[in-house]
Amino acid sequence: MSRQSMILAGFFFNPQGDHRLSWRHPRAPRHEFLDLDYYRRLASIAEGAKLDAIFIADHLGIWDTYGSGLTHYANPRLEPLSLVSALSAVVKDIGFLVTASTSYTEPFNTARMFASIDHISKGRVGWNVVTSALEEEAVNFGRDSNIDHATRYERANEFLDVVKSLWDSWEDDALVIDRSSGVFATRDHVHALNHHGKHFKVKGPLNVPRPPQGHPVIVQAGSSDAGKELAAAQADLHFAIVRSEQEGLAYRADINDRLAKYGRKAESLKLLPGILPIVASSTSEAQEKQAYLESLMLDEVAVDLLSSWAGTDLSIYPLDGPVPDLPEEASYNGWRTWLAIVRNEANKGLSIRQLARKIANTGSVPLVAGTPRQVADELEHWFVSGAADGFNLMFPLLPEDWENFMTQVVPELQRRGLFRTEYEPGTLRERLGLARPANRFSVR
Amino acid sequence: MSRQSMILAGFFFNPQGDHRLSWRHPRAPRHEFLDLDYYRRLASIAEGAKLDAIFIADHLGIWDTYGSGLTHYANPRLEPLSLVSALSAVVKDIGFLVTASTSYTEPFNTARMFASIDHISKGRVGWNVVTSALEEEAVNFGRDSNIDHATRYERANEFLDVVKSLWDSWEDDALVIDRSSGVFATRDHVHALNHHGKHFKVKGPLNVPRPPQGHPVIVQAGSSDAGKELAAAQADLHFAIVRSEQEGLAYRADINDRLAKYGRKAESLKLLPGILPIVASSTSEAQEKQAYLESLMLDEVAVDLLSSWAGTDLSIYPLDGPVPDLPEEASYNGWRTWLAIVRNEANKGLSIRQLARKIANTGSVPLVAGTPRQVADELEHWFVSGAADGFNLMFPLLPEDWENFMTQVVPELQRRGLFRTEYEPGTLRERLGLARPANRFSVR
Ligand SMILES: Cc1cc2nc3c(=O)[nH]c(=O)nc-3n(C[C@H](O)[C@H](O)[C@H](O)COP(=O)(O)O)c2cc1C
Ligand SMILES: Cc1cc2nc3c(=O)[nH]c(=O)nc-3n(C[C@H](O)[C@H](O)[C@H](O)COP(=O)(O)O)c2cc1C
Repeated sequence: MSRQSMILAGFFFNPQGDHRLSWRHPRAPRHEFLDLDYYRRLASIAEGAKLDAIFIADHLGIWDTYGSGLTHYANPRLEPLSLVSALSAVVKDIGFLVTASTSYTEPFNTARMFASIDHISKGRVGWNVVTSALEEEAVNFGRDSNIDHATRYERANEFLDVVKSLWDSWEDDALVIDRSSGVFATRDHVHALNHHGKHFKVKGPLNVPRPPQGHPVIVQAGSSDAGKELAAAQADLHFAIVRSEQEGLAYRADINDRLAKYGRKAESLKLLPGILPIVASSTSEAQEKQAYLESLMLDEVAVDLLSSWAGTDLSIYPLDGPVPDLPEEASYNGWRTWLAIVRNEANKGLSIRQLARKIANTGSVPLVAGTPRQVADELEHWFVSGAADGFNLMFPLLPEDWENFMTQVVPELQRRGLFRTEYEPGTLRERLGLARPANRFSVR
Repeated sequence: MSRQSMILAGFFFNPQGDHRLSWRHPRAPRHEFLDLDYYRRLASIAEGAKLDAIFIADHLGIWDTYGSGLTHYANPRLEPLSLVSALSAVVKDIGFLVTASTSYTEPFNTARMFASIDHISKGRVGWNVVTSALEEEAVNFGRDSNIDHATRYERANEFLDVVKSLWDSWEDDALVIDRSSGVFATRDHVHALNHHGKHFKVKGPLNVPRPPQGHPVIVQAGSSDAGKELAAAQADLHFAIVRSEQEGLAYRADINDRLAKYGRKAESLKLLPGILPIVASSTSEAQEKQAYLESLMLDEVAVDLLSSWAGTDLSIYPLDGPVPDLPEEASYNGWRTWLAIVRNEANKGLSIRQLARKIANTGSVPLVAGTPRQVADELEHWFVSGAADGFNLMFPLLPEDWENFMTQVVPELQRRGLFRTEYEPGTLRERLGLARPANRFSVR
């Protein structure tokens, strides 16, 4: 893989597309969102374009705190680890970045699941480490409300240490399988952790041999200060919310400073901003597509979504009146990344309805709309300037926008030498240009 | 499916076979036990024979308390839920019974995983509910030792109630997906649990629609009194340790009495004793095969295994001396089923070495060795007498014994009209002759 090649991941949370009401579109999937075949098709199309990976977001609950969620929002979905394991059996080259929470699972179980899928997929899985910041998730796990922000991130850090140690607990050469002597494993190459920390006590070793990648690729998403620290300390990829090339460059510089503190080189953490690409035969057609999606939005859903992001019930205020005072970021227990975006927009003098529709329609990431060349130009700029190592592609409407990008923009990037035309041999980690982690237990 | 048809499940815990040192056999898999292809082949062979299901056991730790485990025992393996999800994508008809613990997972996560795999597999998954009785598991989840027996089962019962409620939280008709009105789901058909019990507090609803089977098939294994009560209260299949046809009949009668207490009919809980089948062209060849496997056993492993089962370190006693006093079952926190078997055998006057080798070589279930006809005769007797609704087939050596059974015994059972020759349409639950559970939230 030439160093000219950007990293591209096809993202989804809602299988109908990233626009919050894309499920209403005539060409969105209906009940097919529960069929493996639907995802197999998405994966095959992306694999045809030689994408690095599919990125699947996840929550441990549904969005129902505000009134409209249950009725109007496409809340249910498949669990992503089981989905990815099934997909890896039928789609042979592409990688999978899968979200899992450190707040409501046990490190032994999570380590095991990713190690196992790494074996099953022959080294193609990555873990998007999240801390589950929604109240709607906390209440499904014995709590009345969210764990506080600092504790969530502290737990995440310790969780990752334990998981990585479990992955290392069988050294690469531990399995001997010598039938005649009866030695299955070299005992000295299998390690107990005897971890005894603030949040976890785990003896180990894991009951899965070391994953083919050593460690599955670690992704971190979440742009609060604590989030960026976690990324700098622990991650291989950082999924960032960056609204302009300029902001991307500043973001990269900030991340590099943080990496240096941990003795890490800049190239060991790849920055993948999220973008919303819409491809059409002309700019105006792209705008029409977006306008049509926006027409599917309901005010009630928009306001309730804004309430969720703002951590404040806004439905009690006049719809066309100003946005009231919002919580302070530093003491907020929810998703600070989202709150920061809302606060930033709220300063622009929009009404609740206007702000709600803006946030609900385009989310938080830059819309990149236009012809294949225009979209490729934009990606090229960001990539060449160093504002991004690649992109997390958040398509408004699936499968259509996904397919258009793969068949129209990717070939343009390939012509420009900016993207691979064949998969290189090796694991996801190798293709991403990331080193295989040393085993923390090997002293030989 | 005619009522004449028995239920057959192909079991494994060790992917090399149920004999504890089968990995030493020249025809056992070596590193292939980490490849999906190995399991795909097993599954395809079983599917060719129209088996009901593959049954995968599981532990949340490795067997290393006694000295020999790490060196001589094939401890590591793939995680079964990820394995089954992948298999279901490539093998289209057979069912999957998968072990998961109620002691070291959260009901929301477990409900979700099984619901998701039930969608992915189109209604072919079942859950073997276990309580994780090993010390080696407890220490991976923040504990110094096992949770006590009664508490484990109490938690298991509540866990199952929560999981079943989560599966019911989206009624079958809740998803409307009406694009024009913008109604995705009928709000009144989606239910919060607001469960607040002794062990769990879970709001719900689940974020996966109701599984195709309503509830994935529930299996219970564990023959202590508490285990049988759990089966009678909650399960569809009971995986039993039964050493003779006579014992099977008594066991069935006992289970029927327990079912009656819960207002359930006998046919709502299927009894599947485990058996160890060895098929050969003559009885003496079958015996030779078993003798060869027994020759692979090491004394150290046998004694350590016996120590694990007995809950007492026996390596400190003379190998050829008598078995010392063992713990009382009623106050024992480990696997009471295994302890009961050991205590029963220990009364027969064997030395530690003799008992250890006996337990280690044949485990706890009856060996059914002989020609295809002889094996079929034995299964027919048990089935026709009502001592079993079918069998959990625990093959000493994989893949060989598995393949021999599927290609030699199954055709014999089919000729006798005792087993299906084609898959009936429908879900695993339907094929097993089990009713689809009513939704506990539907009052209409
Ligand atoms: C781009 C992006 C994607 C994210 N994806 C997920 C996700 O799939 N699931 C999840 O629970 N949290 C997700 N998060 C949340 C973060 O991991 C984190 O928990 C949340 O942002 C709160 O942390 P913060 O205060 O650092 O933002 C995402 C955050 C960002 C910025
Ligand atoms: C035939 C059989 C199979 C079992 N399979 C498993 C298993 O795969 N994993 C597990 O953790 N426990 C397994 N168990 C253990 C039981 O579910 C239960 O936890 C254990 O037997 C202790 O309970 P008891 O005292 O009722 O025997 C099995 C038990 C029996 C009898």
